[in-house]
Amino acid sequence: MKTILYPEKESWDTLCKRPGIDKTDLEEVVRAIINSVKSEMDNAIHCFSEKFDGVPPGNLKVSSTEILESTRQIPEELKTAINIAKTNIEKFHSAQLLTEPVIETSKGVKCWRKSVAIEKVGLYIPGGSAPLFSTVLMLGIPAKLAGCKEIIICTPPGKDGKVCPLILYTAQLIGLTNIFKIGGAQAIAAMAYGTESVPKVYKIFGPGNQYVTKAKELVQQDGISIDMPAGPSEVLIIADRTANPEFIAADLLSQAEHGSDSQVIILTDNQGLIEHVKTEVEKQVQLLPRKEIALRALENSKLILLTSLDDCVCFSNIYAPEHLIINTSDTNTLANKVINAASVFLGNFSCESAGDYATGTNHTLPTNGFARSYSGVSVESFLKKISFQEVSGEGIKNLGPVIELMAEAEFLYGHKNAVSIRLKSLQNG
Amino acid sequence: MKTILYPEKESWDTLCKRPGIDKTDLEEVVRAIINSVKSEMDNAIHCFSEKFDGVPPGNLKVSSTEILESTRQIPEELKTAINIAKTNIEKFHSAQLLTEPVIETSKGVKCWRKSVAIEKVGLYIPGGSAPLFSTVLMLGIPAKLAGCKEIIICTPPGKDGKVCPLILYTAQLIGLTNIFKIGGAQAIAAMAYGTESVPKVYKIFGPGNQYVTKAKELVQQDGISIDMPAGPSEVLIIADRTANPEFIAADLLSQAEHGSDSQVIILTDNQGLIEHVKTEVEKQVQLLPRKEIALRALENSKLILLTSLDDCVCFSNIYAPEHLIINTSDTNTLANKVINAASVFLGNFSCESAGDYATGTNHTLPTNGFARSYSGVSVESFLKKISFQEVSGEGIKNLGPVIELMAEAEFLYGHKNAVSIRLKSLQNG
Repeated sequence: MKTILYPEKESWDTLCKRPGIDKTDLEEVVRAIINSVKSEMDNAIHCFSEKFDGVPPGNLKVSSTEILESTRQIPEELKTAINIAKTNIEKFHSAQLLTEPVIETSKGVKCWRKSVAIEKVGLYIPGGSAPLFSTVLMLGIPAKLAGCKEIIICTPPGKDGKVCPLILYTAQLIGLTNIFKIGGAQAIAAMAYGTESVPKVYKIFGPGNQYVTKAKELVQQDGISIDMPAGPSEVLIIADRTANPEFIAADLLSQAEHGSDSQVIILTDNQGLIEHVKTEVEKQVQLLPRKEIALRALENSKLILLTSLDDCVCFSNIYAPEHLIINTSDTNTLANKVINAASVFLGNFSCESAGDYATGTNHTLPTNGFARSYSGVSVESFLKKISFQEVSGEGIKNLGPVIELMAEAEFLYGHKNAVSIRLKSLQNG
Repeated sequence: MKTILYPEKESWDTLCKRPGIDKTDLEEVVRAIINSVKSEMDNAIHCFSEKFDGVPPGNLKVSSTEILESTRQIPEELKTAINIAKTNIEKFHSAQLLTEPVIETSKGVKCWRKSVAIEKVGLYIPGGSAPLFSTVLMLGIPAKLAGCKEIIICTPPGKDGKVCPLILYTAQLIGLTNIFKIGGAQAIAAMAYGTESVPKVYKIFGPGNQYVTKAKELVQQDGISIDMPAGPSEVLIIADRTANPEFIAADLLSQAEHGSDSQVIILTDNQGLIEHVKTEVEKQVQLLPRKEIALRALENSKLILLTSLDDCVCFSNIYAPEHLIINTSDTNTLANKVINAASVFLGNFSCESAGDYATGTNHTLPTNGFARSYSGVSVESFLKKISFQEVSGEGIKNLGPVIELMAEAEFLYGHKNAVSIRLKSLQNG
């Protein structure tokens, strides 16, 4: 952990830079995988799964028996917990389903928008060492609420060819049973272009390693929509002297254990807090099973002392964190000043892991500064809005001359004529 | 124009395919332009503007004098027309500014989302042969309504080094005066990375030629957000025997005059209509100044006879048109069945050019089938939604055990500990 005291404002931009990732080699490798899947389809997938993940060939689709068996393997207590999280996520995301009014913009001219679900979507759920069944909730629930007709899941199986029961249990709980045992770039390619087993989708969601991320980036160039660009997970914590250093240290470590490339930044106006947090981190990190990963992430973490809490928010807005924890005595004033952040946690008891699992907000969020222009996943991510307009005879009489003049000024006489011919018919009629 | 009678359902997918564009060479050229602008900045821009557009070197930024002069050159009648369009666009887009409620998902757990404007955005406005001042309204008005702090415009000047007065007039009318005389891929690069003259932005909007489109695609890979992928403009018209063939022909031609790559498709259940429309098109096309362009576009256009209007909507949903005109006796029933389309025009008097200029809906829309997963530009395109959550002591007591169980099941003990340490403090406190 680096401590930086009162850095000059000129250096803030540099302090906010994320470490660059060299992706030059990656592109070639991933493009080759995508092209193989495009031409060889299921065969290519079997090949890559065996080669990269040591998975024996078998059915790509999870059977109904496998799904049924999964429910027997989950302790009741955990089932209850998942159900509570599900309810909260549903409550929060349901509020995002809004209908817009019909607007009569001019007499006889009615306009409105209608939200319609994207018909076919694909969800990528990472498996392997950490089976992210919570991501099944975070992607599957808004997809279901939006009303997507075809929702498929791709997730890598273990070396035994099986998918983690928790992922299967959670998926069926929210009504998703179209699940494929495919991981990595080949999963993204399968959903983007379709194979004998895997249906083609219009939009692909979900986190993943650098191969998955690169594959999503490449298929996007072919017109397949993706949720958002990705980068390593990160948290920025703003804390004052009233914050509990034990809590801050725990929050910092909960981010650091994600991966050695995780980013952690603490901003404070209180130098004493920095020392307390450091001591606490050293104590707590010893107890973590993922200690080695956390320690490597901590090497890049920064504890920064600034002159005021206002400066802290200002710095945070430049950084544009994925997760922002505001742990100060007056959280509301600071919260109102937040411009760039994906998900914000207010107060002493709002730890990031609460939002990761169960407050109800979505945990699929823009990292790497993308929060400057992207939102996290929501019901809207699974919808598109179609515009409608209905112009009556009276409407075109009113608005027609306006359109004629503007079309003429853009030298588009065909556009003008489509109006003129209608106005003429109304004069004659 | 090709007439196709009762095509088999199996052939619909193929009929819906857009002609492919070979972009292999393009990528290399555009990447070189982007790299030059990244390293040489303003100098590179001057170079490219002179080389590609014959523009003499000069100030890149439009002066306040130039803007002032522009207003004197616009006829009052046209000013009034632009003002009416502006009012309608403002009315329709204002309704998109919604605030969401605070949701208490569990006792003591409050969650909400706040819409915050993207701070810095860039609008690309094509110039040259057709000065698209209407696009200034369509991008500038939602950007202003969203509350973006820095809104810049790039638009190519003519060989005299001047920007079309109509573009300048319209821009200042909605309060935009940060305008740069730059076109093509170099304009996109300037906005994406910044130069001495042009500020860097977070999101880039606007239509353009294939160089502009490719440049947007490439800077997107660097994390700069763009409005949507682009393709040639298109219209699909569904008409029955009650439709006026003169109107249909005029609508068809208003699309065809856009460019030789424009796509036009007419679907009907009435064979007589097809013949009438053909005759009308042949008559009307003769009168168009952009006749040559329209004729080339017509070569790819299709008139398709299907067995029912339901089949027509079904076909249209596969095609996913940018513009969909439903010109039938019962428009509402068909409108309700639309799943994939960007902007829909209902009835005999709702011509596409009405929406292009003045109904109030946005004309920056997804083409090339992208309407399956993308929406047109709206106020939301200039916003991101930030999630907030505030968990009280009572809240973490309620929800804490749920989070602990789920975190443990994902093997993320740091996540669990951030909760446990808080629960413990509450027991002790």
